[in-house]
Amino acid sequence: MAAIDVTLGVDIGGTNTVVGFVDREGKCLAESSIPTNAHEPAESLVRRLHEKVEEIAKPLAGRITLKGIGVGAPNANFYRGTVENPPNLKWKGVVNLAALIRTYYDLPVAVTNDANAAALGEMLYGAAKGMKDFIVITLGTGLGSGIVAGGAMVYGADGFAGEIGHTIVDPRGRVCGCGRRGCLETYASASGICRTILELLAERREESELRNVSPQDLTSKMIADAAGRGDVIAREAFEVTGRILGLKLADSVAHLSPEAIILFGGLANAGALIFEPTKRHLEENLLNIFKNKVKLLPSGLKEGNTAVLGASALIWHELLKVA
Amino acid sequence: MAAIDVTLGVDIGGTNTVVGFVDREGKCLAESSIPTNAHEPAESLVRRLHEKVEEIAKPLAGRITLKGIGVGAPNANFYRGTVENPPNLKWKGVVNLAALIRTYYDLPVAVTNDANAAALGEMLYGAAKGMKDFIVITLGTGLGSGIVAGGAMVYGADGFAGEIGHTIVDPRGRVCGCGRRGCLETYASASGICRTILELLAERREESELRNVSPQDLTSKMIADAAGRGDVIAREAFEVTGRILGLKLADSVAHLSPEAIILFGGLANAGALIFEPTKRHLEENLLNIFKNKVKLLPSGLKEGNTAVLGASALIWHELLKVA
Repeated sequence: MAAIDVTLGVDIGGTNTVVGFVDREGKCLAESSIPTNAHEPAESLVRRLHEKVEEIAKPLAGRITLKGIGVGAPNANFYRGTVENPPNLKWKGVVNLAALIRTYYDLPVAVTNDANAAALGEMLYGAAKGMKDFIVITLGTGLGSGIVAGGAMVYGADGFAGEIGHTIVDPRGRVCGCGRRGCLETYASASGICRTILELLAERREESELRNVSPQDLTSKMIADAAGRGDVIAREAFEVTGRILGLKLADSVAHLSPEAIILFGGLANAGALIFEPTKRHLEENLLNIFKNKVKLLPSGLKEGNTAVLGASALIWHELLKVA
Repeated sequence: MAAIDVTLGVDIGGTNTVVGFVDREGKCLAESSIPTNAHEPAESLVRRLHEKVEEIAKPLAGRITLKGIGVGAPNANFYRGTVENPPNLKWKGVVNLAALIRTYYDLPVAVTNDANAAALGEMLYGAAKGMKDFIVITLGTGLGSGIVAGGAMVYGADGFAGEIGHTIVDPRGRVCGCGRRGCLETYASASGICRTILELLAERREESELRNVSPQDLTSKMIADAAGRGDVIAREAFEVTGRILGLKLADSVAHLSPEAIILFGGLANAGALIFEPTKRHLEENLLNIFKNKVKLLPSGLKEGNTAVLGASALIWHELLKVA
C-alpha cells in the first residue's frame, strides 16, 4: 500500500502542546502531547516537540508521507511565521517559530492563532465544508474569531485580523484584559457569562443555586447545569449573553455577509441555551437583506483534538493553494 | 499608433447615468451622461445608454479597444449581475442588468454597488494603490462601504457584504431608512450630521447660525461652512460624528485589520473637520495591536468622475484576474 500524505498539526497551549498526524480528510492517525513548560524558551519546546513527533511517527514508518506542519499558537502571525509576546508563555519578544521548526523539518510550516486554525479546520473537515464565506467564533475563556471571505482566510494587513472579541459593546462597560472597556469578550465568553451572573445576583432577588458558589469557583458549566435545572438567574444570564452576542454578530454580518457563523468552544457546548437566544437576537438585529439567510451552527469537528485538526488544516489549506 | 485597451464605466444614479471610457491607468478618455428617468424600465435605460456610448465612441474610432463594461448601481449583485429592487428606480423586482447590456455588447460585464466600485477605483487608480487590505467608506446621504481583504473585494455569500452603514450604534437610537434603529448611517453621513445638529440645537443654548436654517434646508455643506467660521454647535456636530464613526470603525478594524480606511463622498470633503475627530476616536478605541497602524485617508480619485472610474475599475479588476 502506498504511503498516504499527512500534515502535522501542532497546538501550543498554555499548559500542554498537542501534536497529531492528520490526513486530507481530517482523520487523525496518531496524536500525543507534551507539557508546554511555559517558563522554558521556545527552542526547548521545539526540541521536545521534535522528539515526540519522531516517537509517534515510528509506528507509522513507511505508511505516511509528511507534507507540511501547521501550528496554532497564541499571538501567532501568519505572515511572519512568528509568535509575538504570547500572553501565557514566557517567550521574550518575537520568536520565529516557523524558522525554529524548519531547523528540524525541511517542509512548509505555517503558524496562526487557534481561532484562525479552528476556522480552517471547519472549512476542510467540519461544519463549513464547501463554504467560502463564514465566521468561526470560539467561546472559551475569551472570545476568539476566524473569518473566511471568498474562500480565503482574512489575515488583514498585519496578520492580526479577526479580533471580534474586542469589538466594543459599550465604551463605558466592563473592564477587559486588553486594557479597554466593554469588549464583546467581557460579555460573551465563559468568563463573561460568569460576570453576568454576578451582575444579575446583585440586581435581582430570585433564589438561585449560584448564590451558594463563590465567584472564584463559578464556571460556565455550572451556569449551564443550573439553567438546565430551571434556575431563573442562570437562564437569564444566557438570555443576556445571547442578546449581546446576537447584536454584535449582526454587525459582523453587515461587514461580511457570511453563509454561516459557527459557535465553538466551552460556552457553545451549552447548546440551545446559548444558540437559541443568540440566533433570536441576531435575526432581530439583522438588516433586512440578511434576515433568515445566515446559519448559526455548532462545530462540525469532533471534540478533543479540534485544535490539532485546525492546525493541520492551516497547512493543508496552504498546500492545496499551491497545488 | 496602436489602439489602447479601455473599459467602459457606467454609474447609474437616481437622477443621471454617467458613462466613460477609462484606460488601465484611470485616465478617462471620453465621458458623457444621460438622464436616468427613474420611472422607465431598465430596457429603455440600457437602449439609451447604448446610443450614448456609440456617440462618444465615434471620435475615438480606431484608437480604443473596448475590453469590458463595469456598472455601479444601487442594490447591484455582483454574483448574479442583477439589480434587485433599487430604492430610487421604478424597476420591478430583479433586473438582470448584465444580461441586458450583453444584448448590445459581447463583452465581459460586471455590476456592483457604488461603494464597492469606489473601493476598486481607489485600489486601481487612487489612495489604495498597491494595498491588499483596506476599507472605503462613502459618507454621502447614507454611509456606503466597500471592503477589500487580501487583494479581493469582499462580496460575502450573497454579494451584499459591506453594509457598515447598517452596523448598530445603539439599538434604541435614531430611526433608520432600513426600518431599524441606531444604524451608523443615521449618525455618520450627510443626513446624519444634520440630525445631530437638530439634537444639539435642542440640547444646548449657544448661539448658532444654524438656528436660522429650516431643518428641511439644512445641508452638511452648511454645517461645514459654519464650523469653518467657528460656530460652536457646528463644530460639536463634527466632534459627535467623529466620535461615533471612530468608535464603529474600530470594530471594523478588529474584524479586518486594514492597512487604511479611506473616507469618501460629500461629508468627507469637510476635510480636517471630519478627519481629525474620527482619527482621534478611532485610535482611542483601537485594540493595542492595531494602534498607530491604520491610515485614515481621503480619496485619491479626482472629484467629479469618481463613480465612473470606480465602475471601470470593477471590470478592470475582473479582467486582470483572468489575465
